Amino acid sequence: MTKKKTTIVLFSGDYDKAMAAYIIANGAAAFDHEVTIFHTFWGLNALRKDEQIPVKKNIMEKLFGKMMPRGANKMSLSKMNFAGMGPKMIKNIIKKHNAVPLPQLIKMAQEQGINLVACTMTMDLLGLQQEELLDDIEYAGVAAYLGEAEEGNVNLFI
Amino acid sequence: MTKKKTTIVLFSGDYDKAMAAYIIANGAAAFDHEVTIFHTFWGLNALRKDEQIPVKKNIMEKLFGKMMPRGANKMSLSKMNFAGMGPKMIKNIIKKHNAVPLPQLIKMAQEQGINLVACTMTMDLLGLQQEELLDDIEYAGVAAYLGEAEEGNVNLFI
Amino acid sequence: MTKKKTTIVLFSGDYDKAMAAYIIANGAAAFDHEVTIFHTFWGLNALRKDEQIPVKKNIMEKLFGKMMPRGANKMSLSKMNFAGMGPKMIKNIIKKHNAVPLPQLIKMAQEQGINLVACTMTMDLLGLQQEELLDDIEYAGVAAYLGEAEEGNVNLFI
Repeated sequence: MTKKKTTIVLFSGDYDKAMAAYIIANGAAAFDHEVTIFHTFWGLNALRKDEQIPVKKNIMEKLFGKMMPRGANKMSLSKMNFAGMGPKMIKNIIKKHNAVPLPQLIKMAQEQGINLVACTMTMDLLGLQQEELLDDIEYAGVAAYLGEAEEGNVNLFI
Repeated sequence: MTKKKTTIVLFSGDYDKAMAAYIIANGAAAFDHEVTIFHTFWGLNALRKDEQIPVKKNIMEKLFGKMMPRGANKMSLSKMNFAGMGPKMIKNIIKKHNAVPLPQLIKMAQEQGINLVACTMTMDLLGLQQEELLDDIEYAGVAAYLGEAEEGNVNLFI
Repeated sequence: MTKKKTTIVLFSGDYDKAMAAYIIANGAAAFDHEVTIFHTFWGLNALRKDEQIPVKKNIMEKLFGKMMPRGANKMSLSKMNFAGMGPKMIKNIIKKHNAVPLPQLIKMAQEQGINLVACTMTMDLLGLQQEELLDDIEYAGVAAYLGEAEEGNVNLFI
């Protein structure tokens, strides 16, 4: 019997939306779905390493690189961000409730064998290079996404 | 014959996005779909009662409770909110065009037998309690959502 | 054999989100899917002609008409908009990387036979008239959308 499939396009670079994406993805993997998260545009920031990686960039790419959050832990909230206070509050609450913060949700996803894919076209647009992103992820374009999604039982754009 | 299914994750707390979600949901119910709206994160605000309910909360939960809109009618727009003017304008226009405002769309959804579900994990994070939410809704987690969605014909994340 | 189907609800009026929608749509059409983009709320702005069209409007409709971007090229970014600098930066980068800007993605969609649909209910709410929108698009409501989506292999809300 073929496995059920869940695909998520993670477009958003917001901490809370990425959390929702990864909670659904991890849940689907626990349901034995084959799961793919296709990170595009600002969603690529969830895959960034948190240290600065020395790679060659032009001025525009350096600017984008500086302004975008370096990794899941630095992302801001879609609502009630309060100049950075919001994410701290949410992370505090997550800790108190023994819920799982975003960086751990991403690790869990990798351990469950979820396919984390970085969209090469938007990496190029935002000047992000493979060295700057997490290890053991995949690189693909919209065609690969559609190949998965057209067989998907649950397809979401987040 | 089994009914077709529509599931919507309502993550957004914006009046216009929630309106879109409920218009699609009510349309799908009219098409005889079995419809579930799973309210998570800021989308839970659409289910809040509009009066203040006396429940025990810690400081953080009180703060979130005060800052988040109390019910569908108090939600703001995703665009052109103009410090609260936008929703008033939209509601005026809705009235003039005999369109249906959000609180009535939610009532209509309940009358049509749409399953309104509140995500228990994010209720916990935001400090929302069952007494504060509308009557006759359901409470569940991501597993229940996925159980519906994997059989869904139309699955959306809004 | 019946064709596979992709449907996208384009709710967002952001340049980057509309770009993502049209890239997926054009990709799906290249995969020989039957593709429909249902433009509602702020997503309608992607279909506006860029010149001003003389039509009768009441004060509120005139106000909305002025404040909303006139066509795809004038839309702003969901992130890092910087009072209009962001879109210019992105368009520059798109040009340098020989990527396709949004207005061309829309033209390409029309040439590929993608059904571009404007939601009549929200046109009415925002005071947009057929003369103001691109030629050769369709006009329909939520029922028509659901008729397509319930047969869809890939259904997204953007």
